Amino acid sequence: MFRVQKKMEKGLGRAGVLETLHGTIQTPAFVTVGTKATVKALTPEQVKETGAQVVLANTYHLYLEPGEKIVEQGGGIGKFMGWSGPTMTDSGGFQVFSLGGKGTSKITPHKKHSLTEAQPRLDEVEPRIAVQPLVKIDEDGVTFKSYKDGSTHRFTPERSIEIQHAIGADIIFAFDECTSPTASYEYQKEAMERTHRWAKRSLDEHKRLGGPQALFGIVQGGRFEDLRKESARFMANLNPPAGGFDGFGIGGSFDKEDMHTAVRWVNELLPEEKPRHLLGIGDPLDLFGAVENGCDLFDCVAPTRQARTGSLYTRKGRFNIENTQYRNDFTPIETGCECYTCLPRPRGGARFTKAYLAHLFRSDEILASTLASIHNVYFIVNLVKQMREGILAGTFDRLKQDLFASYKGVV
Amino acid sequence: MFRVQKKMEKGLGRAGVLETLHGTIQTPAFVTVGTKATVKALTPEQVKETGAQVVLANTYHLYLEPGEKIVEQGGGIGKFMGWSGPTMTDSGGFQVFSLGGKGTSKITPHKKHSLTEAQPRLDEVEPRIAVQPLVKIDEDGVTFKSYKDGSTHRFTPERSIEIQHAIGADIIFAFDECTSPTASYEYQKEAMERTHRWAKRSLDEHKRLGGPQALFGIVQGGRFEDLRKESARFMANLNPPAGGFDGFGIGGSFDKEDMHTAVRWVNELLPEEKPRHLLGIGDPLDLFGAVENGCDLFDCVAPTRQARTGSLYTRKGRFNIENTQYRNDFTPIETGCECYTCLPRPRGGARFTKAYLAHLFRSDEILASTLASIHNVYFIVNLVKQMREGILAGTFDRLKQDLFASYKGVV
Repeated sequence: MFRVQKKMEKGLGRAGVLETLHGTIQTPAFVTVGTKATVKALTPEQVKETGAQVVLANTYHLYLEPGEKIVEQGGGIGKFMGWSGPTMTDSGGFQVFSLGGKGTSKITPHKKHSLTEAQPRLDEVEPRIAVQPLVKIDEDGVTFKSYKDGSTHRFTPERSIEIQHAIGADIIFAFDECTSPTASYEYQKEAMERTHRWAKRSLDEHKRLGGPQALFGIVQGGRFEDLRKESARFMANLNPPAGGFDGFGIGGSFDKEDMHTAVRWVNELLPEEKPRHLLGIGDPLDLFGAVENGCDLFDCVAPTRQARTGSLYTRKGRFNIENTQYRNDFTPIETGCECYTCLPRPRGGARFTKAYLAHLFRSDEILASTLASIHNVYFIVNLVKQMREGILAGTFDRLKQDLFASYKGVV
Repeated sequence: MFRVQKKMEKGLGRAGVLETLHGTIQTPAFVTVGTKATVKALTPEQVKETGAQVVLANTYHLYLEPGEKIVEQGGGIGKFMGWSGPTMTDSGGFQVFSLGGKGTSKITPHKKHSLTEAQPRLDEVEPRIAVQPLVKIDEDGVTFKSYKDGSTHRFTPERSIEIQHAIGADIIFAFDECTSPTASYEYQKEAMERTHRWAKRSLDEHKRLGGPQALFGIVQGGRFEDLRKESARFMANLNPPAGGFDGFGIGGSFDKEDMHTAVRWVNELLPEEKPRHLLGIGDPLDLFGAVENGCDLFDCVAPTRQARTGSLYTRKGRFNIENTQYRNDFTPIETGCECYTCLPRPRGGARFTKAYLAHLFRSDEILASTLASIHNVYFIVNLVKQMREGILAGTFDRLKQDLFASYKGVV
């Protein structure tokens, strides 16, 4: 299913090929997020044209709307949304905890340095009602309230797997508990051990239901070295080799600055021949460290979410198109960018200029979100593709140095 | 510039070819509205893929945002918005009066049977501030307040033409006064005569500025036969033949039920060798009568505006996709429709099902507007294209009978 093509000389980085039921993914690869069975503001063709290879949808959202049975009746997530390539769903755990965690005592929201913040999937949600304390965790599973209408629902590992089988993505994830990065050692350990028991139950249910989907287990353990290593060993050794997980997710929570260290602890222990997905990471600079430390897949809503606010990626950093200076700037978002939005036309000149995009944003036009999302998704997908090419050609370090020299964050 | 290819045996209908600076328009043709230099929710390629041949933008809106100078610096409306085909702008008069007319004594809004209502461009505007009485008409022009911020602006015929030259569409319109269909005979006459003087001034300014754009004069006269005929004769005879208008618009106001009669009065007098654009009409059934009575071009925001509310066109009528019954309906919007949204995939089944669209609308996803707009624009553009083919093949009457038999309005 996964084949390493080339390893970096230093570190854990590698280029590989991941086979799925709907085609291969050349790794490292950025996984485009299609939260509610649509990459926001883009048609499937527009997604494909960015170079994106795989779309990840959210189990929690699809369970609530339209319901997993509808997706199943529609032929599964790919057919339902018109995406013919590889698909993934997360387990629902992240949303259950992040959308439901507010106000509970055990799971303290931690706004400043959390991976949770770097995983802005929850921001896509725009809750329509105030969220009340509502997540109750027990050994068997989690009871939570819908962010939409406050109705009560329950996920167990078995239910998560059942829903994900109905949704029918090529790659699915074991049900896990997402903790806060500020949680105590004791709580992280308790939660991790529960996640391990849930992983076993997820795997058992997956085998019981049968079928060709791949199941990834999720390594947790917060920022603690012994817990991360224990979790990695557990996941690696669950029913190996043929009966175990087909790959691994690496979940928050750890502080952003600890991320690469934590990722290295984990990837040094995970089996080399299986793919590793770092969940919810999408900052351009962060991705280099994650790739060097052996991650193959990444997903994040940031490219599309930021696009919809007019925040556009370039190799020099992100800028906001609504700043006054762009009103009469007739150059593309980034000269040399070959996305649909930027690509010059045959007769010369930018295809869509900053001035035009500024106008669309100022006029609240839907096309603003579409053109900006195309650019940002292209940027991040293409950046990870370049990392892959850098690994294959031995030029990864130069690529990294160049981007770190030019990229100045928000400019 | 315009050539009649074939006339219908009965009535005034004809098929023709209109040459513009950016390609030819096969008429009759539905003109897609791109109010603020974008057909809402669609990329230029998506517009083209519907079969749309020409896009009409609104002078009033582009004057306010981003300003005509920005559009001019961006290479003109077509290049600015990335549309390589023919373009039009209206004169700004319609929006000046419809967005500014509320509360004035002379120009009473008439909600029930007006063409103004059938021209929902004003509904696209979503005024951000309460509109105060604000349109002042004098012989020289119109002073009005911006719907955006209440600032005061002034259009004269010369200014409208100057702005339209800067925006740079292939076909532009003379500045006119849009009256209410309930206006008295005396007021309609007074306004029409002023519109005639403005038409002369528009034409003079157009000649003075020079350049290759085509200018259409607008026939007014409300629901009164003598006024409509007087207006048609005036417009037809203004500096003919080479120095006159390149074509004609037929403006509201008249009651919807009088429309075809009024159109016939006008088109019997307008020169056969020049194109006629019925402004703001887009109801599928209305279009048949307009074509039979000699109109070549039509524009209306209804297809896109209705699409964004989930109201979708079929040959049986319009239905709303948010109705419960569509949640698990895995058929396309209309079987046999060949738009991007409906066209079956090679492996069979609908491309995007009603169930998927229902999900997107219920989830407030941007893609809902895109897929629905593609379908509706395709529907109406293709319907008028079929009318053209019907004229050429002598099967127009059968097409009309079939649609009148099946189309049940809102279903």
